[in-house]
Amino acid sequence: MDDSVENKEELIKKVVRGEIALHEIDRLAEAGDAVEIRRKGIEKLEGVSLANIGSAKIDYSLIKGKNAENVIGMTSIPIGVAGPLKVNGAYFAGETYVPLSTTEGALIASISRGIKAINASGGSTVRVIKDGMTRGPVFQFDSIVDIEKFLEWLPKNFKKIKSAAEKTTNHGRLEDIQPLVTGTNVFLRFTYKTGDAMGMNMATVATEAGCNFIEEHFEGAKLIAVSGNVCSDKKQSLINSINGRGKTVVAEVVVKEDVLKNIFKTDADAVNNVNLRKNWAGSARAGSATQFNAHFANTIAAMFLATGQDVAQVVESSSGYTWTEARGRDLYIAVTLPALEIGTVGGGTGLPTQKEALSLMNVCGPGNPAGSNAMKLAEIIASVVLAGELNLLSALATRELGKAHQKLGRNKA
Amino acid sequence: MDDSVENKEELIKKVVRGEIALHEIDRLAEAGDAVEIRRKGIEKLEGVSLANIGSAKIDYSLIKGKNAENVIGMTSIPIGVAGPLKVNGAYFAGETYVPLSTTEGALIASISRGIKAINASGGSTVRVIKDGMTRGPVFQFDSIVDIEKFLEWLPKNFKKIKSAAEKTTNHGRLEDIQPLVTGTNVFLRFTYKTGDAMGMNMATVATEAGCNFIEEHFEGAKLIAVSGNVCSDKKQSLINSINGRGKTVVAEVVVKEDVLKNIFKTDADAVNNVNLRKNWAGSARAGSATQFNAHFANTIAAMFLATGQDVAQVVESSSGYTWTEARGRDLYIAVTLPALEIGTVGGGTGLPTQKEALSLMNVCGPGNPAGSNAMKLAEIIASVVLAGELNLLSALATRELGKAHQKLGRNKA
Amino acid sequence: MDDSVENKEELIKKVVRGEIALHEIDRLAEAGDAVEIRRKGIEKLEGVSLANIGSAKIDYSLIKGKNAENVIGMTSIPIGVAGPLKVNGAYFAGETYVPLSTTEGALIASISRGIKAINASGGSTVRVIKDGMTRGPVFQFDSIVDIEKFLEWLPKNFKKIKSAAEKTTNHGRLEDIQPLVTGTNVFLRFTYKTGDAMGMNMATVATEAGCNFIEEHFEGAKLIAVSGNVCSDKKQSLINSINGRGKTVVAEVVVKEDVLKNIFKTDADAVNNVNLRKNWAGSARAGSATQFNAHFANTIAAMFLATGQDVAQVVESSSGYTWTEARGRDLYIAVTLPALEIGTVGGGTGLPTQKEALSLMNVCGPGNPAGSNAMKLAEIIASVVLAGELNLLSALATRELGKAHQKLGRNKA
Amino acid sequence: MDDSVENKEELIKKVVRGEIALHEIDRLAEAGDAVEIRRKGIEKLEGVSLANIGSAKIDYSLIKGKNAENVIGMTSIPIGVAGPLKVNGAYFAGETYVPLSTTEGALIASISRGIKAINASGGSTVRVIKDGMTRGPVFQFDSIVDIEKFLEWLPKNFKKIKSAAEKTTNHGRLEDIQPLVTGTNVFLRFTYKTGDAMGMNMATVATEAGCNFIEEHFEGAKLIAVSGNVCSDKKQSLINSINGRGKTVVAEVVVKEDVLKNIFKTDADAVNNVNLRKNWAGSARAGSATQFNAHFANTIAAMFLATGQDVAQVVESSSGYTWTEARGRDLYIAVTLPALEIGTVGGGTGLPTQKEALSLMNVCGPGNPAGSNAMKLAEIIASVVLAGELNLLSALATRELGKAHQKLGRNKA
Repeated sequence: MDDSVENKEELIKKVVRGEIALHEIDRLAEAGDAVEIRRKGIEKLEGVSLANIGSAKIDYSLIKGKNAENVIGMTSIPIGVAGPLKVNGAYFAGETYVPLSTTEGALIASISRGIKAINASGGSTVRVIKDGMTRGPVFQFDSIVDIEKFLEWLPKNFKKIKSAAEKTTNHGRLEDIQPLVTGTNVFLRFTYKTGDAMGMNMATVATEAGCNFIEEHFEGAKLIAVSGNVCSDKKQSLINSINGRGKTVVAEVVVKEDVLKNIFKTDADAVNNVNLRKNWAGSARAGSATQFNAHFANTIAAMFLATGQDVAQVVESSSGYTWTEARGRDLYIAVTLPALEIGTVGGGTGLPTQKEALSLMNVCGPGNPAGSNAMKLAEIIASVVLAGELNLLSALATRELGKAHQKLGRNKA
Repeated sequence: MDDSVENKEELIKKVVRGEIALHEIDRLAEAGDAVEIRRKGIEKLEGVSLANIGSAKIDYSLIKGKNAENVIGMTSIPIGVAGPLKVNGAYFAGETYVPLSTTEGALIASISRGIKAINASGGSTVRVIKDGMTRGPVFQFDSIVDIEKFLEWLPKNFKKIKSAAEKTTNHGRLEDIQPLVTGTNVFLRFTYKTGDAMGMNMATVATEAGCNFIEEHFEGAKLIAVSGNVCSDKKQSLINSINGRGKTVVAEVVVKEDVLKNIFKTDADAVNNVNLRKNWAGSARAGSATQFNAHFANTIAAMFLATGQDVAQVVESSSGYTWTEARGRDLYIAVTLPALEIGTVGGGTGLPTQKEALSLMNVCGPGNPAGSNAMKLAEIIASVVLAGELNLLSALATRELGKAHQKLGRNKA
Repeated sequence: MDDSVENKEELIKKVVRGEIALHEIDRLAEAGDAVEIRRKGIEKLEGVSLANIGSAKIDYSLIKGKNAENVIGMTSIPIGVAGPLKVNGAYFAGETYVPLSTTEGALIASISRGIKAINASGGSTVRVIKDGMTRGPVFQFDSIVDIEKFLEWLPKNFKKIKSAAEKTTNHGRLEDIQPLVTGTNVFLRFTYKTGDAMGMNMATVATEAGCNFIEEHFEGAKLIAVSGNVCSDKKQSLINSINGRGKTVVAEVVVKEDVLKNIFKTDADAVNNVNLRKNWAGSARAGSATQFNAHFANTIAAMFLATGQDVAQVVESSSGYTWTEARGRDLYIAVTLPALEIGTVGGGTGLPTQKEALSLMNVCGPGNPAGSNAMKLAEIIASVVLAGELNLLSALATRELGKAHQKLGRNKA
Repeated sequence: MDDSVENKEELIKKVVRGEIALHEIDRLAEAGDAVEIRRKGIEKLEGVSLANIGSAKIDYSLIKGKNAENVIGMTSIPIGVAGPLKVNGAYFAGETYVPLSTTEGALIASISRGIKAINASGGSTVRVIKDGMTRGPVFQFDSIVDIEKFLEWLPKNFKKIKSAAEKTTNHGRLEDIQPLVTGTNVFLRFTYKTGDAMGMNMATVATEAGCNFIEEHFEGAKLIAVSGNVCSDKKQSLINSINGRGKTVVAEVVVKEDVLKNIFKTDADAVNNVNLRKNWAGSARAGSATQFNAHFANTIAAMFLATGQDVAQVVESSSGYTWTEARGRDLYIAVTLPALEIGTVGGGTGLPTQKEALSLMNVCGPGNPAGSNAMKLAEIIASVVLAGELNLLSALATRELGKAHQKLGRNKA
């Protein structure tokens, strides 16, 4: 065992014993060793294996016929950790490291600082207040006379359509069909409970069965497309924000005056002022109809990448609202995410490194009871989004953003 | 050399000689070998090295202090290729393979089929019609009386602000400042030419210098945040769609009747009907204000991931419009992307696998002349988006989507 | 009896016997006489009195304490008629003249031409597919923990809230309460059936009672405003377009090839082309999120003015979609109005001239059964909107708009 | 002269001497007399004639061939006055009564109370910060290749297009053409200075001439419609809010603590809290993309009706933002109207009662210098909108809205 190996082992022990902060390792070891020390320290701390994240060896048979075609290898994206973050959820209550994949310098450091402030304030309080995955086919009719009849027929036949749809799935449950009429077009927004899966595939297959039933039993209804864009998948839309898609989550924290001062060198009024002018007046002025926030998208993209979510769904998952209030000299801050679309089974969640990232938070695979892992993940992600907002707004309030860029290279909003 | 090795070499040669399609390799070799054969075939065909994509060994010193913090390793995402795609651009004219990273089964296969139809129609025709990266700070004033004076002062001092801003950058050029007033808030949307860089960082640093100049020279202007959300970065907004952000690109193709029939088993009227009802009536009905398209986000996310773009910018980069016209029995289809934010230098574009993906298209690093590589990349991405739209709309027109899902596992819209 | 009187009587008879078109009178008598001849002809034809429209003498005791304060007199706006229009509705089936108040030259003439084409095509087919007036208060809470409890409490206490709300009204029926959460704000969208009244006042008073019940029975719910802007009253909003407000109405007609040719000198493809490029691509490009139409607002403003509706509600009532399809060589055209807010009792509907305008269509005051007059009026207005769209799109298709302006003075879109 | 006449004369004198408030007259005389007393009092006070508002006798030759067709008489709408209001504008500085036509009880009383508070705070401060009327035709092209050439051709030929357009008008000046591309569609947003006219007709005729020039000189440009909905006329749109249409106006006032207390029984924090939760969070949540206000539409509709503006343009003219700040214990409140479309010549402004309403504010007909009357009117209307917002937000803050309804019959938001 040479000096370097000895030194690494020693540093890993220090990580485990909490004697050294994760970011300090970069000063104590060369780049590759620092990565290994952090990873191994966390493996020991959390009792998980992060072997694939460390080596990136791939068994391509896991991918073939499932996640991609014409594969020529793997794209590698750096993954870092922030935390541990204290989360007070209805499903997840406790502390967890959070994995973040990004190529944007300063993002993980920013979130880490936000987490520090949240933890110093007792952790985030978070609730999932709505849950449902949607698919919105479009039908063509001849006349409003037929459509009127169809609108009467639809609720009367809901149970039969539900039965037809649910035959295609073990976990999906059809809960609602919302009709929208425009000329000869009838859009039907099917909403499902989908357990631990994000559920888009499940919802599509089930909706197709539902549509087949409709076409067979209502003369004059002609399916044009199983997705008529009122889903709205991989699109921001008011229908998603108003009615919800995936999980609707709110995470909040009251940050004490001294925490604001010590960690951010700012105060509640200053942060509130930035939030109102930037996230409310600014987004309104820009016509940014579903994103009254500073940078939900950064945090969500980094967590989606790390955990195997569908990154194209960052589009609507990053919709939402950052709300602040000065409570005396303390700051109340909440993030509301109406359309957080995530799962812990299916899609990219079964890939080797992604699986490990989920395991790091103890939310890999199906939950017990079913659906609870996805709920936990939603609570964690919303809490990390909260950390990202808290930090960026505070940084702007003290005009530190520029300095952060120049030091760590990229900007966050 | 064992049989397997011999066989691999033989298959690589067949790939190079065009005797075998990329997707056929999966039937002829086990999963890992198939990946290697495809990769090596393409390396030879294109004269590039894709070694990192193959092995994913990382030199972490490349990342440290630049792309991420608290790094514990790498997230691996499958990367496949589609094409070669024929592009008739003002900057890129020729054929290229396109790299796509995704965890969504069927996406690469879908795009490949779209490319086949585009190629059979003579390739995509594509133009970048606008180019400019923006940053939109917000200032606070006391009264509309001061604001009125400021609005008069601003154009008179543009050159000085420009000079202050450009001192911070070698490549950035400030072209315009657009003011927006709301109560005591003045938002200023700075627009820059940023060469081959996506340019957000450059624009932020330069804008801060510009803001400093303003604060120093106009009494009563108080900077609240260097980003006031009218940028709009990592947010969809009408200001981005109306005024453009990054590259504004249009890619089009006229698909002949027989191509529609042979490749998609459909016709121009059917595709046009799906497009109108789904992408126009559906998006309008959903309140999806900037995305009148089927799945720009899927294609853009896959290309952004592969090439080291900022994946959080998929949000606004996926804004845009799919326009179809039946021209006799042929189909005209165009995609318009008002806010495609991409670069070939900076950010994640310098990471090992991402660099190789850019090299595969011959657009890695700074272009000659400066800016031309980013233009080429924009033309290519828009053309791939066109392929994705053409295929999905055609698949919906023939109601094949369900079958595709069931075979390849995930849905695309 | 002098010549002029004799002549007037003769012309009135000709109007009654259908020997002369309404617009021709302008050539045969001086301005004031022409107005009188038309009015008296229609009085006889329809068996109504239009005395106030003719004389504008006002009994101010009708207004005092009801419709306005600090009254100094009356504003006079010209009122004309178009039609008779053939309407095939579920509530109104038959022909009716329609009253239009406007100061915009060419508007009534345009609508008249549209009506001519609709009548030649068998009349408009129209259905009200949704009906409900809304009020959306906003409550403040301390924490998402309380909000979660409130969201559980709300449906369990719906009947009690409904009972409290309905105590304030004879006609209003509370049908639904939709919650929307943003940080510490909970918006509740109350939806009512309001009979023949537009119902905003009724809904407000009832909602206040409902809010009082909530505040008294759920600790921690604090009412901030009985209107929290999710109503959305006198505002365009996606929540109105998606969920409906007032009446959601669709009116349609298939215009035969020869009618298009004879009346408009155009054809189905040309009108369809204008509609797609202007009303869909154009509105999308402008960020006109709820108005994919040419000039609903013109028609609705003119009918609202004439019939005593709240003209500030033209704002959201003019939301909606114009859909066209070439059916062979015929043109299908439909208008969809998601938020047509009208009544035949209350507000300005009881004023003298407004009452007569309603009487002209036989929809003045409460219907039998209750609510049916408002339904009839909704069907008529939507049909007139259809006429306005059909004419303007056809005029644009033949590039006649310019000439119309130059002849009649004002433009329509 | 009977008692009643004597009494009327006496009361008129009291009005002139300021010994009696306008609303008190209702208690001292019967309804018709009260109206006459107020009107005559104001006539004397302001030195104007309001004869038509009093008698509503119409010379129909004024309307024929200009404002309406198939006229059968006049619709009468009550007109009341509020004020006098103190306005500190760049064009209008002084006090004025403001005429408001409405059928909604309580509106004029509400605005009157708002005006009282504004006057007690020194009057409104108001500025027009942008001015331009737009028309947005849509052209069809064959290919993006042609469009690219056209986008290069356009600025080079701007002067020629301007010259062609301006030949059609004495007052209109073409200032800018903004292109927007979507597939084969090119929308061109022409912006004009139009003097004292609202200018829509002028802009349409001039734009048609400009379009003719384009079609004649650029091969491949085919005009589809002179209005392609990017104008956006009689439609709310982000392009109007972002770039402005008609006048962009900001009116503000700082309301002292004691004024808030004495007039509204509220304080700055309470009003600010209502504004944030209702006008910002509520409008965002509803997807009300261009109306972050409480009831601009009410005030604007009432002033548009009274002064002969195009009431269909209430739609976009009611777009805008209400901004509040607690300044210590005082309240800063501002309204920002990006698209206030008004004129003092043309359209309905020449009708008898409308003309008198304009005269009451001394802004009837062409201004001196040209355009200054429209500027004055814009300043006054924005100030009245400010009064309406201030009053309603304050009423909500004290939960007085319900009582107001029950007393005066209709609600305002």
